Amino acid sequence: MKKRLKELAEWVGGVVVGDENVEITGVAPIEGAREGEITFVANPKYLSKLDDTQATAVIVSKEIVSAKKNLICVENPYLAFAKVLQLFHPRSYEPRGVDPKAWVSPKAKLGRDVTIFPFVYVGDRSEIGDRVTLYPGVYIGEDVVIGEDSILHANVSVYSRTLIGKRAVIHSGVVIGSDGFGFVKEGRRNIKIPQVGIVEIGDDVEIGANTTIDRAALGKTVIGRGVKIDNLVQVAHNVTIGEDSIIVAQVGISGSTRIGQNVTLGGQVGIAGHLKIGDNVMVGAQSGVAQDLAPNGAYTGSPAIDHREFLRMALSLPKVPGMRKALADLEKRLAKIEAVISSEKKEK
Amino acid sequence: MKKRLKELAEWVGGVVVGDENVEITGVAPIEGAREGEITFVANPKYLSKLDDTQATAVIVSKEIVSAKKNLICVENPYLAFAKVLQLFHPRSYEPRGVDPKAWVSPKAKLGRDVTIFPFVYVGDRSEIGDRVTLYPGVYIGEDVVIGEDSILHANVSVYSRTLIGKRAVIHSGVVIGSDGFGFVKEGRRNIKIPQVGIVEIGDDVEIGANTTIDRAALGKTVIGRGVKIDNLVQVAHNVTIGEDSIIVAQVGISGSTRIGQNVTLGGQVGIAGHLKIGDNVMVGAQSGVAQDLAPNGAYTGSPAIDHREFLRMALSLPKVPGMRKALADLEKRLAKIEAVISSEKKEK
Amino acid sequence: MKKRLKELAEWVGGVVVGDENVEITGVAPIEGAREGEITFVANPKYLSKLDDTQATAVIVSKEIVSAKKNLICVENPYLAFAKVLQLFHPRSYEPRGVDPKAWVSPKAKLGRDVTIFPFVYVGDRSEIGDRVTLYPGVYIGEDVVIGEDSILHANVSVYSRTLIGKRAVIHSGVVIGSDGFGFVKEGRRNIKIPQVGIVEIGDDVEIGANTTIDRAALGKTVIGRGVKIDNLVQVAHNVTIGEDSIIVAQVGISGSTRIGQNVTLGGQVGIAGHLKIGDNVMVGAQSGVAQDLAPNGAYTGSPAIDHREFLRMALSLPKVPGMRKALADLEKRLAKIEAVISSEKKEK
Repeated sequence: MKKRLKELAEWVGGVVVGDENVEITGVAPIEGAREGEITFVANPKYLSKLDDTQATAVIVSKEIVSAKKNLICVENPYLAFAKVLQLFHPRSYEPRGVDPKAWVSPKAKLGRDVTIFPFVYVGDRSEIGDRVTLYPGVYIGEDVVIGEDSILHANVSVYSRTLIGKRAVIHSGVVIGSDGFGFVKEGRRNIKIPQVGIVEIGDDVEIGANTTIDRAALGKTVIGRGVKIDNLVQVAHNVTIGEDSIIVAQVGISGSTRIGQNVTLGGQVGIAGHLKIGDNVMVGAQSGVAQDLAPNGAYTGSPAIDHREFLRMALSLPKVPGMRKALADLEKRLAKIEAVISSEKKEK
Repeated sequence: MKKRLKELAEWVGGVVVGDENVEITGVAPIEGAREGEITFVANPKYLSKLDDTQATAVIVSKEIVSAKKNLICVENPYLAFAKVLQLFHPRSYEPRGVDPKAWVSPKAKLGRDVTIFPFVYVGDRSEIGDRVTLYPGVYIGEDVVIGEDSILHANVSVYSRTLIGKRAVIHSGVVIGSDGFGFVKEGRRNIKIPQVGIVEIGDDVEIGANTTIDRAALGKTVIGRGVKIDNLVQVAHNVTIGEDSIIVAQVGISGSTRIGQNVTLGGQVGIAGHLKIGDNVMVGAQSGVAQDLAPNGAYTGSPAIDHREFLRMALSLPKVPGMRKALADLEKRLAKIEAVISSEKKEK
Repeated sequence: MKKRLKELAEWVGGVVVGDENVEITGVAPIEGAREGEITFVANPKYLSKLDDTQATAVIVSKEIVSAKKNLICVENPYLAFAKVLQLFHPRSYEPRGVDPKAWVSPKAKLGRDVTIFPFVYVGDRSEIGDRVTLYPGVYIGEDVVIGEDSILHANVSVYSRTLIGKRAVIHSGVVIGSDGFGFVKEGRRNIKIPQVGIVEIGDDVEIGANTTIDRAALGKTVIGRGVKIDNLVQVAHNVTIGEDSIIVAQVGISGSTRIGQNVTLGGQVGIAGHLKIGDNVMVGAQSGVAQDLAPNGAYTGSPAIDHREFLRMALSLPKVPGMRKALADLEKRLAKIEAVISSEKKEK
C-alpha cells in the first residue's frame, strides 16, 4: 500500500509541514523506522529522537511547527497514529463458511457470510450474527446470541444464554458465563447457590486472553458498550461495568460491584463486592478498593486512598524505622529535661 | 413450577408468617422481584427494602416476626434462599452418550449414562464414572479417573494420572496436572526437575474458570473434599488444601504449602511456599502470607498480620507524612528548651 | 530401572560415602522414601530427618562426610537430585503421526516424526519442526514456526506469525500472540491501535498453564532462551524477557518493559510499562515496580524498594498506631514544660 503524505494528513485531520507529496509505504516505531515509513512522537520527552529516525515522516503534536523531517501535526499524535495504522492494516474479511469438522446444532441460527472453523461447537437455538468468525475450539452453549461482525478467537468458551453484542473481539481462552462463586455455609459444608442469571456484553467490547466473566446468580452480569478488558481479568457475578471503561490485566472485580462509565482500573487492582465506583474514576495498579469511590477521582493503595495522598505516604513509609528511633531519642531527651525541672522545683 | 409457601417453609425448615397457601412461581432478587416470586433479606441493613418489594413472600431471619409481606422465618435466610433456588432450578440430567465426533481411546473405561460431547479426547486407560458430562474440547490424558456425576465444562485440560472425585464441577479453561514450576540453577541455566507426581481432587469440589492446579514434583497435590475454588487461582505443586476450604479468585498458593480445613482465602491472596495455614483461618483479600498462620485466626496485609491490628495500621499509615512533620517540629521545640536549660545552668 | 549407587554418583559428579554397590530402584521425597529408593537433603535444617528416612541412600551437600545412611555427596544436592530424577524418568518419545481427526492445512509444512493429536488445527504456511507434539485442542494460526522437539499441551492457542524455538514446553491453556492492549481515547471512545507485531520465543523456554503473551503493537514481544514462566502470568505487548530469567506465577509485566537476563520475579509481582529491569535482579513476591531497577539488586514492596530496607519497614509499620500515641503524649509533655519555662521567665 502506498499513500501520499497529504492523503494521510487528510485521513487523520492534520496539517503537513514539509513535502506533502512524499510517498509513505508503511508504519513503524521511531527506533526501527526506515525510509518510506511514517512514525510518531506522542511523548514530548522523545522529541529528541526526531532528528535520528530514518522515517520519511513523523506524526507530532501541533505545537511542533518545524523539523528536519516531514511532519503531520495533529491534536493527538497517538490517536492519529492509531488511525494511520488502521489504514495500513485494514481488517479484511472473507467468509469461509461452516467447516464440515465443526458441529453446529440444526436448531442454531446462522447469519450470512459467517466463518466457522473446525472443532467449533454451536449449541441448540444459538444465534450467530452475520460475518461472525468462530475460530477453532470455540464452544457456544445453548441459547447464546452473538452480534454481527464479532470475532471469537480459538478456544473461547461461552456458556448457555450469554448475549454478546456487535463487533466484539473475544481473545483466546476467555470464559463467559461460568457459574458465579456463590456458596453458603451449612455448618462447615459449602452449599451451592445455583447461578441462574446470565452475562450480557454490549457492542464494541474487546476482552483479553484467558479473562473470565461469571454469569449472575440472578439477573445479569453486564459489560457496557465499548468496554475494553485486558488479559486474565476476573469479573464476578452480577458485576456491571459502565460504557467505555478500561480494565487492565489481572484485575479482579468482586460480586455485585458497579463500575461507572469511562473508569480506568490499573493492572492487578482488586475491588471488593457490592461497591459503587463512580464515573471517570482512575484506580492505580495493584490497589485494593474496599469502599465506594466518588466520581472523577484518582485513587491508589491497598486500601485505596486519594492518589496524591498515596504518593506522599509511599515516600514517607520507608522513613518509619528512622522515625521510631527519633521518637525514642526525643523521649529520652524529654525525660531528662523533666528530671531537671522536677529537681529544680524541689530545690525551690 | 408452582409451590405453596408452606411447602417451601417445610423444605427449608422455616416458619410461615402470613398466608401459607399463597402460590410461589419463582425466585428473584429483592429489587427485581415481581408478584408470585419469593426473595430474601439476609443482611439486616436491607430490611428497609422489605416494604417496597413486589415479591409475594420474603425469606427473613427468625428475629423478624411481622411485616406487610408473607414471610418465611429461618435461622439462616441466605442458606434457605439457596435451597429454594435449588428447588426451582433443579439440575436435570439426560445422558447424550458418546458423540461420534469425540475421540475416546478403546482402552478407556466409560461408566453408564455418560455424556461425551464432540471434540472431547479421552486417553488410554482413563476411567469416566457414571453420568459424567464432558463438554466440547475437554482433554483427558491417560490413566485419569473421574468420579460419578462430575461435570467438566468446555475446554478443560486434565493431564495424565489425575484423580478427580464424585460430583466435581470443573469450569471451562481449568488446567489440572500441568507440571509444577520446579527448576534448579546450574550456573545461570535452569535445569528442570521432572514433575512425576499427580493431582488428587476429592468429592464435591468445584473449581472456577481458568484456574490451574499443578501436579506434584513427587507425591500428590491434594484438593480436599468439598473445597470450592474460584476463577484464575494458582495452586502449585505439592500443595494440600483441607476439606471445605474456600479459595477466592486470583489467589496464588506456592509449592508444598498446606492449607487447613474450613479456611477462607480472600481474592488475590498470595501464600509463600512450605507454609502451614491452620484450620478455620481467614485471610483478607490481597494479603501476602510469608509465615505459618495459627488456626482460627483472621489475618490481613502484606506481610499478613492480625486482622484488627492491620485495620488500625491501615488507618494510621496515611498519617505518617504528618507525623514526620510533627516529629521535626517537636525536635526543634525540644532543642530550644535544651538551649534554655543549658544557658540557665551556665548562669548559675 | 535399577542403578548402583556408584553409577548415580558418577552421573551427578558426586562421591559415595557408604556402600557404592547398593541398588537403587527409584526416587522419593525424604518422608515417604522406602527401601531401595534414593532421596535428598538440600536444606541443612532438614538434616535431622536423615536418620529417620527409610531411603537406601541420600544425596547431601559435600560438607556432610558421614551418616548412618549411604550418601552421595555433591556441591548442589538439589541439582543432583534433579539429574537423578531425569535419569529415572526419562522423557521418552514415540511419534504418533497426524491423527485423521486433526485439521492440518495442505499448505503447512510438517517435520519428521511429529505427533498431531485429534482436534488440532494447523493453519496455512505454518511450519512444525521434527518430533514436535501438538496435544488435542491446540490451535496454530497461519505462518507460525515451531522448533523441533517442542511440546504444546492440550488447548494451547498460538496466533498467526508467532515464532517458537526448539525444545519449548508450552502448558495447557497458554495463549501466545493475542492482541496487545492498545487503545487511545477519542473523547470517551476507545480507539483500537492495531497490533501488527509478533511474539518470538527462544529455545528451551517453558511456559506455565493459562499464561498469556501478547503480540507486539509493532515489532516483537521477545521471550529469551531458557526463560521459565509459571502459570497465569501476563506478558504484555513489546515486552522483552532476557535469557534464563524466572517468572513466578501470576506476575504481570506491562507493555514495552525490558526484563534483563537471569532475573527472578516472585509470585504476583506487577511491573509497570516502559521500564528497564537490570540483569540478575530479584523482585520479592507481590511487589509493584514503578521505576527502573539497577542490576544485581533485590527489591520488594509496592512500590518496590531495596529488599532489606523493605524488611525493616515492614516490621515497623504495625508500630505506627503506637507511635502516633507516643507522639501525642510527647507533645503534651513538651507543652507542659514550655508552660513551666515560660512562667519561670515571667517570674524573673
